[in-house]
Amino acid sequence: MNLLLLDSPDFIAPGRVRIAGRRLTHLQQTLQPRPGDTLRAGLLGGALGTATLLHRDDQTAEFSVVLDTPPPEPLSVALLLALPRPKVLLRCLRAATLLGVKEIHLLHSWRVDKSYWQTPLLAPQRLREALLLALEQARDTRLPRISLHRRFKPFVEDELEAVAGTRARLLAHPGAPQPLAGTGGPSLLAIGPEGGFIPYEVQSLTARGFRPVSLGARVLTVEVALAAALGRLGQH
Amino acid sequence: MNLLLLDSPDFIAPGRVRIAGRRLTHLQQTLQPRPGDTLRAGLLGGALGTATLLHRDDQTAEFSVVLDTPPPEPLSVALLLALPRPKVLLRCLRAATLLGVKEIHLLHSWRVDKSYWQTPLLAPQRLREALLLALEQARDTRLPRISLHRRFKPFVEDELEAVAGTRARLLAHPGAPQPLAGTGGPSLLAIGPEGGFIPYEVQSLTARGFRPVSLGARVLTVEVALAAALGRLGQH
Repeated sequence: MNLLLLDSPDFIAPGRVRIAGRRLTHLQQTLQPRPGDTLRAGLLGGALGTATLLHRDDQTAEFSVVLDTPPPEPLSVALLLALPRPKVLLRCLRAATLLGVKEIHLLHSWRVDKSYWQTPLLAPQRLREALLLALEQARDTRLPRISLHRRFKPFVEDELEAVAGTRARLLAHPGAPQPLAGTGGPSLLAIGPEGGFIPYEVQSLTARGFRPVSLGARVLTVEVALAAALGRLGQH
Repeated sequence: MNLLLLDSPDFIAPGRVRIAGRRLTHLQQTLQPRPGDTLRAGLLGGALGTATLLHRDDQTAEFSVVLDTPPPEPLSVALLLALPRPKVLLRCLRAATLLGVKEIHLLHSWRVDKSYWQTPLLAPQRLREALLLALEQARDTRLPRISLHRRFKPFVEDELEAVAGTRARLLAHPGAPQPLAGTGGPSLLAIGPEGGFIPYEVQSLTARGFRPVSLGARVLTVEVALAAALGRLGQH
C-alpha cells in the first residue's frame, strides 16, 4: 500500500478522516505509524496529499489530511480486451490500472471459454476491490471504468462505433506487418484471447477501422502483451 | 505449447526425432496429433520449422522434422534485475523471455530479502525448465543466459563495467525526470526491487553511467515495470 486511499465516508470533519477494516489492518501490519507520522494519501477520484496520524487503537485510526496535488494524468489508451481466464483477468486489470488505463471493455470472443463470464471476480464489488488495491500500489486515485460485453457480434455491430469514437483503433495482432507505435493521441487498443481472435473477429474489427499492429515475432501471453503494449503507447 | 522445442538428444536420425515425457504428455492432452499432422517445431538454440507426426504410442512419439527458418531476433536489451521474491521472479523471467531478452543478471540489493537467494527456483535445472516453457510459448529457440550476483557492491565495483560494456546503461527509477525511450541500440536496463534501490545503490549505478529514466508517475510492480519497459525499448 503505497497510498492511503480515502473515500468520502471516511471523513468525519473537513480535513479529518477515520479509517477501519482492511486499510487499518494493513497499516498495523506494515508501517505501524505512530501519532505525528505522515503517510501519502489520496481521495478516491480526487487529489493526492498527506495524512498525519492523530491517534489509533485496535479498531480505528484518525488522521488529519491535506490533499492538494493532482493525481497522475490518465493514460490516453482505452482497452478492448477479450475476457481472460479469471486468474489472468486479475493480473491484467492490475497491470492496466498501474499503467494508468481508465477505460476497460471486456469482450466475449470465440476463444473465450463461456465459463469465464461466471467468475465472481466480475461482480462490481469484487472488481472495485481489485482496482482499489491497484490504485493504492500505483499512487493513483481514479478508478478505471469497466464495461462487460458478453456477445461479440452485437457489441461490434451496434456499440463499438460509439465506444471508439474518434480515437485511433489498434488491434494487437501477432504477425501484423506493422509494429505497434505510439499514436500521439487517444487510442483504443484491442487485445485478443490466448490463441488470438479468430479470422472472422479480426475481419469484423479491421472492417471498423482497427489497424493490426504487432509487438514482435514472439507469441506473448495476454498479460505480457498488455503491459508491453501500454508501455509502448505510454511513451511521449 | 506453441512450439515443439527439440534438443539434440531427441534426434534418432537426421531429420527424425523421438520425444517422450512432458512434451509428449502435453501433446496427448491438448493437440492429440495423428500421423501426418504437422506441428511447429524448433531446435533449442537453432532454427524453426515443422514436425510431422510419424507415429505415437503411450510412451513415445516420432516425427520427421524440417527446420529451415531462423528464430526471432533477440531483443537488444539485457536486464540487471534486483532478485524478486520467487513467485514474481518466475513471472519476470517468463515475461523477459517472451519479449526476447537473452541476458539476465539477477542482483542482490538492500531491499532484497536474503531468503530469496535460497529458493530452489534458482537451481540451474529449475531455471532451465522455466525458460524452456517460456520459449515454447514464445515460439523462440534461444535460451536466455542467467547470471546470479549475490553481493551488490562487489558486483558493481568489479564486474559491472565488463558486463555493461558499450551498451546504453539505463536505470528504471520512479520519479526520474527523463522518460524511458528507445535508445536505438543495445542497452542494459537496471530494475530495482519492490520499494526501489536505496539511494546508495542508485548513486553507485549512476556513478557508473546508468541514466535514471521513468515509466511515468505511477508506482509499478517489478513485473509490470519490466514488461512495460521492454515493450518501449523493443520499439524500432
